[in-house]
Amino acid sequence: MCQLLGMNCNVPTDIVFSFTGFAQRGGRTDSHLDGWGIAFFEGAGVRLFVDHQAAVASPVAELIKRYPIKSRHVIAHIRKATQGQVALENCHPFVRELWGRYWVFAHNGDLKNFNPTLNGAYRPVGSTDSERAFCFLLQELRLRFGDGAPALAPLRAALAELVGAIAAHGTFNLMLSDGNALFAHCSTKLCYVVRQHPFLTASLSDEDVSVDFAQLTTPRDRVAVIVTEPLTTNEHWTAFAPGELKVFVDGMPLPDLV
Amino acid sequence: MCQLLGMNCNVPTDIVFSFTGFAQRGGRTDSHLDGWGIAFFEGAGVRLFVDHQAAVASPVAELIKRYPIKSRHVIAHIRKATQGQVALENCHPFVRELWGRYWVFAHNGDLKNFNPTLNGAYRPVGSTDSERAFCFLLQELRLRFGDGAPALAPLRAALAELVGAIAAHGTFNLMLSDGNALFAHCSTKLCYVVRQHPFLTASLSDEDVSVDFAQLTTPRDRVAVIVTEPLTTNEHWTAFAPGELKVFVDGMPLPDLV
Repeated sequence: MCQLLGMNCNVPTDIVFSFTGFAQRGGRTDSHLDGWGIAFFEGAGVRLFVDHQAAVASPVAELIKRYPIKSRHVIAHIRKATQGQVALENCHPFVRELWGRYWVFAHNGDLKNFNPTLNGAYRPVGSTDSERAFCFLLQELRLRFGDGAPALAPLRAALAELVGAIAAHGTFNLMLSDGNALFAHCSTKLCYVVRQHPFLTASLSDEDVSVDFAQLTTPRDRVAVIVTEPLTTNEHWTAFAPGELKVFVDGMPLPDLV
Repeated sequence: MCQLLGMNCNVPTDIVFSFTGFAQRGGRTDSHLDGWGIAFFEGAGVRLFVDHQAAVASPVAELIKRYPIKSRHVIAHIRKATQGQVALENCHPFVRELWGRYWVFAHNGDLKNFNPTLNGAYRPVGSTDSERAFCFLLQELRLRFGDGAPALAPLRAALAELVGAIAAHGTFNLMLSDGNALFAHCSTKLCYVVRQHPFLTASLSDEDVSVDFAQLTTPRDRVAVIVTEPLTTNEHWTAFAPGELKVFVDGMPLPDLV
């Protein structure tokens, strides 16, 4: 199994603190050795860093920890291969374009007998079940909504339905973003925290590092961090329910659909 | 105007030497200050690094110069903005997927009144004429060949025709690769060199650096470097003719079509 990390903010924020802890799980505090990746939205553009080396040994991961890239939507992944060989084309996150926007996707879990018909609009480059699921998701969104991007509410409803159908094939913890919102779906394990005023000092679980966010933020800032397992020892992480799809906008989850 | 750099090899090779000289043109020996980018194929996967900072000031460019990523197909670009604001989504190279392969594209030049009808299969995320041309190229390739990738000869013929039609709108120096071949088209300025046995020492034009390739290669290695202006002072660079589309495979240009 792999691990996922996402961040969604109301102002561009760097992810150095959270990524520092998360990257330790790529070979030191946990055994996710089969590559890693991270994607940052910057406006409509995306920076994607992927590496098939373990995150703890990767010079690219070292750069991310030192170079504070500010972003409102970040998705990261460390991989422990279950399907697909260890190769660059199988590293998450994956990026495709739909409706003139980039979409970023990462998945933790395993899908069984998931072989949907792909019409050619999106075709996997690598050999993972994850990229296949991502291609299917985008294909189906385009079939439903045509050439124009829908509003967030119908998009969310369509995703909930599609993701639920795919999740019937196995474990489908995922993060997805188009640079407007961050969608997170939990099959088995995902939790989140919202950091906002008054900010506190947070201490990483995976490394002996603490940060006093009050020193680095303004009272307006709000940041949601979503991750497979809590990154800090002294914050309140909220667990997702199995089957739950949450939508994060401007650093907080939208109210649940009823 | 921007500058382009491409590399095509018969074995995975690092581009540190050529990129070191090229990056100097991003702010030191020339004034291409409006961002830069580089894409490396690794098997079917692509590593893409883009930055809207000048290449000489970019920590990411510094990483590339220190971390020898080995690749058989590399495309790099330094930007001097003519159309489209300075933003990450306007940095070349651009990447899209077609026929289950990634395609990488970079352009130097300026297209006037180029507003093709896009059917939605590929839509620009940014605002450059370049990304518009790339989307149009992939759309037309898919329309001609359907869902299956053609052989190299018909692909080359189709590209020659499409690129010629786009080039009628202005200056269209470009590099394009699907990880199998590297296509380079010259409207105004492009040249190449093939490095092969017996290897010599090459000296950069833009920085006081020389490399004795004989120390770093085997007699089997062959590398083609394609660039807007020669990178070295003591090698024989062959200029493209205006309107010429060359196809590089395994480190050398294929014979011209007659």
